[in-house]
Amino acid sequence: MNTLRLAELTTEDAERAVTASPLVLLPAGAFEQHGPGLPLSTDLVRADRIAELVAAELDGRALLGPSLPVGVSPHHLAFAGTVSLTTTTFAAVVREYVESLHRHGWRKILVVNGHGGNNASLSTVAQDLLVTHPDLGFAWTPLTPLASDVVADMDVSEVHGHSGEAETAQLRRLAPELVHEKRLVPGTTRRAELDSLGTLSRQAAITFPVTYDRLSRNGVLGDPRRAAAGHGKSLVDAIVARIAGFAEEWLAS
Amino acid sequence: MNTLRLAELTTEDAERAVTASPLVLLPAGAFEQHGPGLPLSTDLVRADRIAELVAAELDGRALLGPSLPVGVSPHHLAFAGTVSLTTTTFAAVVREYVESLHRHGWRKILVVNGHGGNNASLSTVAQDLLVTHPDLGFAWTPLTPLASDVVADMDVSEVHGHSGEAETAQLRRLAPELVHEKRLVPGTTRRAELDSLGTLSRQAAITFPVTYDRLSRNGVLGDPRRAAAGHGKSLVDAIVARIAGFAEEWLAS
Amino acid sequence: MNTLRLAELTTEDAERAVTASPLVLLPAGAFEQHGPGLPLSTDLVRADRIAELVAAELDGRALLGPSLPVGVSPHHLAFAGTVSLTTTTFAAVVREYVESLHRHGWRKILVVNGHGGNNASLSTVAQDLLVTHPDLGFAWTPLTPLASDVVADMDVSEVHGHSGEAETAQLRRLAPELVHEKRLVPGTTRRAELDSLGTLSRQAAITFPVTYDRLSRNGVLGDPRRAAAGHGKSLVDAIVARIAGFAEEWLAS
Amino acid sequence: MNTLRLAELTTEDAERAVTASPLVLLPAGAFEQHGPGLPLSTDLVRADRIAELVAAELDGRALLGPSLPVGVSPHHLAFAGTVSLTTTTFAAVVREYVESLHRHGWRKILVVNGHGGNNASLSTVAQDLLVTHPDLGFAWTPLTPLASDVVADMDVSEVHGHSGEAETAQLRRLAPELVHEKRLVPGTTRRAELDSLGTLSRQAAITFPVTYDRLSRNGVLGDPRRAAAGHGKSLVDAIVARIAGFAEEWLAS
Amino acid sequence: MNTLRLAELTTEDAERAVTASPLVLLPAGAFEQHGPGLPLSTDLVRADRIAELVAAELDGRALLGPSLPVGVSPHHLAFAGTVSLTTTTFAAVVREYVESLHRHGWRKILVVNGHGGNNASLSTVAQDLLVTHPDLGFAWTPLTPLASDVVADMDVSEVHGHSGEAETAQLRRLAPELVHEKRLVPGTTRRAELDSLGTLSRQAAITFPVTYDRLSRNGVLGDPRRAAAGHGKSLVDAIVARIAGFAEEWLAS
Amino acid sequence: MNTLRLAELTTEDAERAVTASPLVLLPAGAFEQHGPGLPLSTDLVRADRIAELVAAELDGRALLGPSLPVGVSPHHLAFAGTVSLTTTTFAAVVREYVESLHRHGWRKILVVNGHGGNNASLSTVAQDLLVTHPDLGFAWTPLTPLASDVVADMDVSEVHGHSGEAETAQLRRLAPELVHEKRLVPGTTRRAELDSLGTLSRQAAITFPVTYDRLSRNGVLGDPRRAAAGHGKSLVDAIVARIAGFAEEWLAS
Repeated sequence: MNTLRLAELTTEDAERAVTASPLVLLPAGAFEQHGPGLPLSTDLVRADRIAELVAAELDGRALLGPSLPVGVSPHHLAFAGTVSLTTTTFAAVVREYVESLHRHGWRKILVVNGHGGNNASLSTVAQDLLVTHPDLGFAWTPLTPLASDVVADMDVSEVHGHSGEAETAQLRRLAPELVHEKRLVPGTTRRAELDSLGTLSRQAAITFPVTYDRLSRNGVLGDPRRAAAGHGKSLVDAIVARIAGFAEEWLAS
Repeated sequence: MNTLRLAELTTEDAERAVTASPLVLLPAGAFEQHGPGLPLSTDLVRADRIAELVAAELDGRALLGPSLPVGVSPHHLAFAGTVSLTTTTFAAVVREYVESLHRHGWRKILVVNGHGGNNASLSTVAQDLLVTHPDLGFAWTPLTPLASDVVADMDVSEVHGHSGEAETAQLRRLAPELVHEKRLVPGTTRRAELDSLGTLSRQAAITFPVTYDRLSRNGVLGDPRRAAAGHGKSLVDAIVARIAGFAEEWLAS
Repeated sequence: MNTLRLAELTTEDAERAVTASPLVLLPAGAFEQHGPGLPLSTDLVRADRIAELVAAELDGRALLGPSLPVGVSPHHLAFAGTVSLTTTTFAAVVREYVESLHRHGWRKILVVNGHGGNNASLSTVAQDLLVTHPDLGFAWTPLTPLASDVVADMDVSEVHGHSGEAETAQLRRLAPELVHEKRLVPGTTRRAELDSLGTLSRQAAITFPVTYDRLSRNGVLGDPRRAAAGHGKSLVDAIVARIAGFAEEWLAS
Repeated sequence: MNTLRLAELTTEDAERAVTASPLVLLPAGAFEQHGPGLPLSTDLVRADRIAELVAAELDGRALLGPSLPVGVSPHHLAFAGTVSLTTTTFAAVVREYVESLHRHGWRKILVVNGHGGNNASLSTVAQDLLVTHPDLGFAWTPLTPLASDVVADMDVSEVHGHSGEAETAQLRRLAPELVHEKRLVPGTTRRAELDSLGTLSRQAAITFPVTYDRLSRNGVLGDPRRAAAGHGKSLVDAIVARIAGFAEEWLAS
Repeated sequence: MNTLRLAELTTEDAERAVTASPLVLLPAGAFEQHGPGLPLSTDLVRADRIAELVAAELDGRALLGPSLPVGVSPHHLAFAGTVSLTTTTFAAVVREYVESLHRHGWRKILVVNGHGGNNASLSTVAQDLLVTHPDLGFAWTPLTPLASDVVADMDVSEVHGHSGEAETAQLRRLAPELVHEKRLVPGTTRRAELDSLGTLSRQAAITFPVTYDRLSRNGVLGDPRRAAAGHGKSLVDAIVARIAGFAEEWLAS
Repeated sequence: MNTLRLAELTTEDAERAVTASPLVLLPAGAFEQHGPGLPLSTDLVRADRIAELVAAELDGRALLGPSLPVGVSPHHLAFAGTVSLTTTTFAAVVREYVESLHRHGWRKILVVNGHGGNNASLSTVAQDLLVTHPDLGFAWTPLTPLASDVVADMDVSEVHGHSGEAETAQLRRLAPELVHEKRLVPGTTRRAELDSLGTLSRQAAITFPVTYDRLSRNGVLGDPRRAAAGHGKSLVDAIVARIAGFAEEWLAS
């Protein structure tokens, strides 16, 4: 049995874990389209397995709390199967997970977030907690942006991102059984394929979201077939190492 | 790959599933104490696996949607590890799952609910949906109460219920790897052990909730060791058959 | 003057009542169609008068607090005159009644609920109060289900319920001046009259609400004319005795 | 039977009333201290009976909808027995009453408001409805301010108001059985008895609420014993006539 | 630099101001049509400048806090440029301003309100604060109603009010650069121009709001050209003197 | 008169502006400590004046809508004078501004945001609007991050940011009258001055907010005195040019 998951512990185990494992990792995913080759749960699977690897790395000082299987995905709702929470409901769920854990004595909580659409809501929770729970530390981390140097070394398409090279590489590494290898096909790969609003939405500094049906016919940005064998390992290793490094410093603080 | 789970489908699969699998099952659990021998995730595990068996029974006409891993458990918060949503946040999550599924075309949604604490919130969602989504069918089912005749045939304790004979029997059947057989110990088993408020809270018709630390020192009602080998199978078979029977009638309507 | 009603007391009387009458009964009704023969206020009238009889039985140790004249009735909105609160607003009203009474020192509050549509919201309030007001006892009771044995002895229709034999009998007993005897006509009385969704909605264990215009052309389930003279008295006596018995135990606890 | 009350109608009667009685009066009260001589329900009783007199005056073209027995009374919570809703819950209740009535076809709704603490929330509802229900007319009226000329003719105390001369006179007229004549005693009657904040709170144009325990030891402003026999009738007649006059113009518009 | 504005102070200045300037004035405006001759910000400009004059009068014992540039204006939304908050959002903003100021030590807060549409929401905030912040004094004042005697001395139109004689006179006095003198034209000036609902909406005691496009073709009530030179000064002087007088008494209490 | 500000237009001007100026800029600020030398309104002043420069650059095709003078600043509440909205109230205000503008016909709205604490809430609004207003374009831009290349050319402290070199330079350029030159003093300037949590909070990719009293004794990060004369101009010019460039592309799309 996996003793790193709070879900699988008994209440007596949990009582000991408050002291022994003072850091709780909350895997946050999404339930949204990932193109023709990846499953709807891609983001949760990545977050969950990376959280597990981080917890293993920390050797018992961290454990996985309850997960967030559905995230904030309004931009993907035009694609069948996408299930989305509103920003305020997602934030409420995170806040209430945190409040329960805080009640039992945990003071360090890190959301391991596999879905960019959750970023803003997670930050609002972090802000609200500064006032309501001043004795609590709350942080959240994305996945792929932690390894942007690794992505830079991959031969990615001009346009790449959602369900593209880096994400597919991670899922192949973490859950190859969920990847439909034969259905992997490129989505939008060149800037010239984007219309003017789509181009504007991908500016670096200015936030201007558009829905994904405008960005890509099949929901994919980039070419998932271009991820060479070792990329998944490099990405996952880098992400795990960086989260674990952060956690080590936090636990030592 | 398990094609009964929406989470594992691609968006293209999901688009076909709206027609092929017009019924969505949402497994609802809790993240709460289940005594010294069962894990915090007991209710989700039961709901999820029973939903899977029901879907299998229906042979592709139903699939599992996103799950609800955390439920409404204020009465268990005195026990370490319990994570609870408020009644309104839990209801909001269910409603937003339903709204997304409705948007894609599903019109029949059945929550397979492993945790009694969710009952009231599920019913409020059902009531609200009558007005906001008149073209939608929404139902929810408990588990053990569907098999009360089977429970009546078991040799249960005078006081039995949470983490007791029937629940332990189900988990042994559905996920034996999660049961700490050696840690199974009786909790409150006789009415004489209850104080006056505890006794009042267990009246049949009048709803008077008290917190579980008042009802049981270790969080258990009944004696989990008394579940004989075949009870788990009988309970699960009865529950699955009755949910599947309901679903068949609904699909035929 | 009726000294069992808080509404009719002065503030000085109320101050004494906190000690003398430690149990507050809150009558909860609905404002909804009750077929061609019963008034929209049927549920409040039943709840209010039964609460009054219970208070009388308790001889001053309980009193009636403010009533809830409108309940949760989305399933009856197709019938003219029905006024409904949403589940969250109804719950907020109950919670705020309770918070005010708690502030004055009352610690035992029992909602006497004449309308099944309020059940779920009342239970969510009870759950929320476990966390926010741990020193408070909050319970709610239905009416007719307390006397299911009496109903079983009546010669009711195959399909019976809303505005049917048992409810009409109660109103005849409690407020005969509100019953339009000549307008009492049967509604849906046989299962064969229900369509498939209507049939599904009346399964015992699975909750699947449908709107009442699907269940009955005139809003009635059962035949209100079949209530023999003594049934109303038997029902009311049983309900009052059982609530009073519960209250006695609670007051003694 | 009183056919002016929607609560006492059947749904078939209600359907006819949408056309025959196009104006709905909603009596709004409070559940709050009214000094040593008047009951907690004083404001609802006044509102309800005045609404009834107005409806009678209009001869069937108006009827009484569901009442609001509890209002917004935070300023009276220091006095035992006061039950208060928050401003937003009270507003939600009013809005949901209106939405249900609107659904059945009513387009003219007038709240007959016996309690000044409800004024602000009623006005926020009126503002919100301008956007959400542009085809609806919604108005609210106070009681005593409609007859300020009559009050000016009474020999009232220098400080007068809550539970004082004019309010007591109305209740004597409308429900003498609820007035404890022997317990009527003066409260704060002279400006010199107010402290500086109390004085500031009673400026005409600047709104500066304070709690009533600061304004009066026994919760009364004025001397309820000074209401001469005819004042109650004059006040009630004036109030009824003015509301009925407004309603006539509205019905004719 | 204007040391009466908190916005222009540093945090160190602000710390001293809690003691030195114990009264905070919050200017509340609207962002709404004011006819062909006045700008959308008319109400904020009036509130802000009058608050400044009051603060100057109080000689450092009061300062201006953050302003409320947008108010509750659903009745003006038919006119281009009007921006409106809902009643609950406007109230939340005021409440959160107050909570922050309270946290720093301020206990006297006065909203100087240039827009009648904000009145009800401000009063709900005042009511809520009685319970949540019993150690805080919170008041709000309108502008023109403080000088109703001055208005009575002006030769105003039979119908006058929004963007009419008194409001135009104030803006001419306070910010003449914002008045388009040549575009000032009369709006509705006689009762005979109002339709029956418009007439009803202008009853003194009964609140019955209608949207402004029903009251006036160009959004103006009255004739803004009729304000003689001295009226603006008389109005502003009277308003400032009365608010300052109230503040003096409050500061001395 | 400044015709680029909607606040200063009449409703008739506004009606024309919907067509002539199809882009609305909403300046968003904060009301929070900016150390000993800068005023509480620093962020609004920067946002407002930069928005004005952008509008001027666009030559009438954009105008300034209502501003957001108070933002989300829980991390600064330990410093006197800071006024903060909760994340949900700030988001509600933005959403309601947008809804009003949308109602009048505007379809392009850009928040010019001077305060990083608003970022997350602005992004949640952007996400929610994708579902509720699919025909609307909504974007938000920060200020200083648009000119990170200019900052990189400045000789900034090892630790720099809030109220430091780049922010002070901007305010000197945009509103020198609000800068207390003699009070400008360094805050935290070296990493070694941060404690371990403070260091963690400034990781690039992982979001881990702490309150500013932990990061800096006087609320400043960096040394505001080190901004050489030309930096303010370079920063402002770059920021304005980049926002205007984005707006040009949008207007042309």
